[in-house]
Amino acid sequence: MSKTYPGNFFEDFSVGQTLRHGTPRTVTEGDMALYIALTGSRFPLHCAAPAAHAVGFERQTVDDLLAFHVAFGKTVADVSFNAVANLGYADVRFLGTVYPGDTLRSESTVIGLKQNSSGKNGTVYVRSDTYNQFGERVLTWVRWVMVHKRDEALAAPPAVVPELPAFVPPEHLPVPPGLDGRQYDTALTGSPHLWDDYAVGERIDHVGGMTVDESDHTLATKLYQNNARLHFEDHLMKGSRFGRRLMYGGHVISVVRALSFNGLANALRIAAINGGAHCNPSFAGDTLYAYTDVLERWTLPGRDDLGALRLRTVGVKNAESATVAGAKVNRDGREIYRDEVVLDLDYTVLMPRRG
Amino acid sequence: MSKTYPGNFFEDFSVGQTLRHGTPRTVTEGDMALYIALTGSRFPLHCAAPAAHAVGFERQTVDDLLAFHVAFGKTVADVSFNAVANLGYADVRFLGTVYPGDTLRSESTVIGLKQNSSGKNGTVYVRSDTYNQFGERVLTWVRWVMVHKRDEALAAPPAVVPELPAFVPPEHLPVPPGLDGRQYDTALTGSPHLWDDYAVGERIDHVGGMTVDESDHTLATKLYQNNARLHFEDHLMKGSRFGRRLMYGGHVISVVRALSFNGLANALRIAAINGGAHCNPSFAGDTLYAYTDVLERWTLPGRDDLGALRLRTVGVKNAESATVAGAKVNRDGREIYRDEVVLDLDYTVLMPRRG
Amino acid sequence: MSKTYPGNFFEDFSVGQTLRHGTPRTVTEGDMALYIALTGSRFPLHCAAPAAHAVGFERQTVDDLLAFHVAFGKTVADVSFNAVANLGYADVRFLGTVYPGDTLRSESTVIGLKQNSSGKNGTVYVRSDTYNQFGERVLTWVRWVMVHKRDEALAAPPAVVPELPAFVPPEHLPVPPGLDGRQYDTALTGSPHLWDDYAVGERIDHVGGMTVDESDHTLATKLYQNNARLHFEDHLMKGSRFGRRLMYGGHVISVVRALSFNGLANALRIAAINGGAHCNPSFAGDTLYAYTDVLERWTLPGRDDLGALRLRTVGVKNAESATVAGAKVNRDGREIYRDEVVLDLDYTVLMPRRG
Repeated sequence: MSKTYPGNFFEDFSVGQTLRHGTPRTVTEGDMALYIALTGSRFPLHCAAPAAHAVGFERQTVDDLLAFHVAFGKTVADVSFNAVANLGYADVRFLGTVYPGDTLRSESTVIGLKQNSSGKNGTVYVRSDTYNQFGERVLTWVRWVMVHKRDEALAAPPAVVPELPAFVPPEHLPVPPGLDGRQYDTALTGSPHLWDDYAVGERIDHVGGMTVDESDHTLATKLYQNNARLHFEDHLMKGSRFGRRLMYGGHVISVVRALSFNGLANALRIAAINGGAHCNPSFAGDTLYAYTDVLERWTLPGRDDLGALRLRTVGVKNAESATVAGAKVNRDGREIYRDEVVLDLDYTVLMPRRG
Repeated sequence: MSKTYPGNFFEDFSVGQTLRHGTPRTVTEGDMALYIALTGSRFPLHCAAPAAHAVGFERQTVDDLLAFHVAFGKTVADVSFNAVANLGYADVRFLGTVYPGDTLRSESTVIGLKQNSSGKNGTVYVRSDTYNQFGERVLTWVRWVMVHKRDEALAAPPAVVPELPAFVPPEHLPVPPGLDGRQYDTALTGSPHLWDDYAVGERIDHVGGMTVDESDHTLATKLYQNNARLHFEDHLMKGSRFGRRLMYGGHVISVVRALSFNGLANALRIAAINGGAHCNPSFAGDTLYAYTDVLERWTLPGRDDLGALRLRTVGVKNAESATVAGAKVNRDGREIYRDEVVLDLDYTVLMPRRG
Repeated sequence: MSKTYPGNFFEDFSVGQTLRHGTPRTVTEGDMALYIALTGSRFPLHCAAPAAHAVGFERQTVDDLLAFHVAFGKTVADVSFNAVANLGYADVRFLGTVYPGDTLRSESTVIGLKQNSSGKNGTVYVRSDTYNQFGERVLTWVRWVMVHKRDEALAAPPAVVPELPAFVPPEHLPVPPGLDGRQYDTALTGSPHLWDDYAVGERIDHVGGMTVDESDHTLATKLYQNNARLHFEDHLMKGSRFGRRLMYGGHVISVVRALSFNGLANALRIAAINGGAHCNPSFAGDTLYAYTDVLERWTLPGRDDLGALRLRTVGVKNAESATVAGAKVNRDGREIYRDEVVLDLDYTVLMPRRG
């Protein structure tokens, strides 16, 4: 019997099936330092113990996206090792606080399957959940991927396509226990802007950019223990249509979130990712920029210390964000993403309100 | 109101003004490991707990320059985001010991202003201080930068130019409480040379060099949360006279200090930086070398366990240090830095004395 | 007296001489995070505290090879700074468990010397031992290196060539106290294959590859505080026959071990390295692949929870491992390594047995 794990193909999945992913991971201060080095992130709850303590946490907390990428990385071997493409995300909720020293493990349940008309592959929908060492669920998300069939002759399974929310509504946004926005001091970031100051429809240009080199994105993706081959194997990718390694899209999200500090410095925490598209591939050498449109400004049930902002952050490569009029253009009667747009992310953050 | 922070321009500064910088930073074992990976530093007090403990510290201490770069990085957004050039440093004193787990925050006071004759920019002098979570001041320094004016039509403020010491005199050199040089064992480094063995005028060639690649200097500078755009944005810098990203000069100091281990292995701690010049820019791919001239050998008041050496370390790129006769050459009657000289650093270290 | 340490030349060594190496090193969670980022390693005892705890360890343990590279790095300045070539390893035994927070120091004893017929250099054999802060020996190994003579006119010392074991026999394989293979759960890795499932003669193709960029191998080697110049100095190496920096062979071993997770996921721990050859040099940009032949399957005295597998792992560059028929080819009547083979490693792992 072959000792090598080939990953799952389309016909290996069945609706209701649970996949318990291997390689649990203790996230440490070492990972947090690397995350700062790899992204330049400056959000204070993740890099300053007293700041986190002041608003109710035991100590500095693991960056939401670092936890997400580690949790996500666990699922790659079983879910997307044979993927043609990552098609989308929905209902990503950051349920619990992750501290350095916590150990994350992930499992996924197949919630949908739909073979493509070509018969060569199909879409697999999974709900993934991540638990800490106490069995508390700290993250949950749905993603769907297009996966190769091993045997194209096999009959298609009955199509099951789950209904997914367009966004996480305010009443379902997780607020971590103990978090007290009234104790938040804007001197921590130097930015005076709080929830009350943002207006729906407002555009924020994040100004600064960041070039991502080959070692940056591969170190990040290896740190997350994501083993998708297309990020690491130049020899393999030279034969692909890209001709080189592709940057892990999750790391693009991280860099863009770090850039958004200039304009959204007091966005304490990501509560949810409503959806997102990796519009164009990113490669080593690309300089990433970003702007954000404020989509919604929500109060939170029973809270006057914190509000939520639903944001659409657009990541752009090799063009300063202020020079980009919007994410899409009309080309031959169709609305398509501009060539320089690499990310269109719809997500929701928690931000302190004025007292 | 724009949510984006534009940084301060020359006319935003006034003498006596205090700037409380955002994003305090807890420095951890993770940062220390990265610092070793980024510099190759081998100084034992920062990488070996028993070595640090033996001479009176609780445990391994954060490298002086790592602490400095983090502390300095805090000041960039408010002081030098719109800088044309970093002109100089003076009176940099390493007052306190920083341990992993300590949180650093910085503030700056404007101590001088002088508009340039062009009317387009001016020099801003700031005294910056860094405090740990107990409110103890652990670092202090003066720097001056040339900053753009937003509105060139504005009248010049009265010129105030502070008097700055040429060097930190021995009686002002900070010696951390508890440090006992008598307990130091040269077996820790393998180098037998102590304070007594160095002679004023002696030159030490540090022999080995280190090539700095793009990811090395950008990871370092992001780790320090320094957000000066010229280090990170290849897209922006392609349009500059350099045509590419500039290496953060502070990281050059760190690499050169790490190289100086071969010849100055028992230089336990940096007590002060008296001044320094980044003589030529460094770029990815440059191999850095260094040599040191011993400028002064000072006893310290009331101590026979430790002495101080005032050093001039010259960093060189792409030329072995032994092949470089000196930092400057006479060209057309003027003393100028050689093209290969990237750093001329005047600083003072503490070194154990013979019993 | 020169303050610069020139390293030892062939005539500086004498049989029986002990070298106490400088710069002890506390290995931390920061180093462990970097090790994951640099290799993509997923072996659970080193990245998941509960996994390590379940089989009898206090917490996650430092990766065997991270400990080895740090321990080895200490010896470079005294043993191989003036080496022409690293010729071989033998009897590498991983005696003790290294935890984050432990401090490693190394010493070496010269056990053999043999001048080459050219009179220009000679082979030095050393037994190196590494101790933790409690004085427990955690690692031991023999290596032999060809070292330059300073003075070629000096007479050759009497030749002493130690007898070295071809491999570490099963009765000498170290098993760490407390390790209980019966508590091991294959769900940790997702791989069901245990010691019982491997057959002598079986070949395992590890499928995935990893491209190593310039910053990857230099960050790793600096992390290990290995100061061999040929890995770091592009300026120097441009004048060598390679024309560029050479990748530290130890890091190649680490990457290949990380790749071997796919096929050997439950190889909990390296017990011994029997020998190894760096068959061809590796450079930045190379994509590394690997396959493994099972050489021996050994029971361990008095244990039914764990067995040992002696493995031969072959590392290949820029060719998928499945396409490589073997490590050597017959060229002009001689068996030589294929050009794409970079590593031929003979080592022994511990793996849980079925209950």
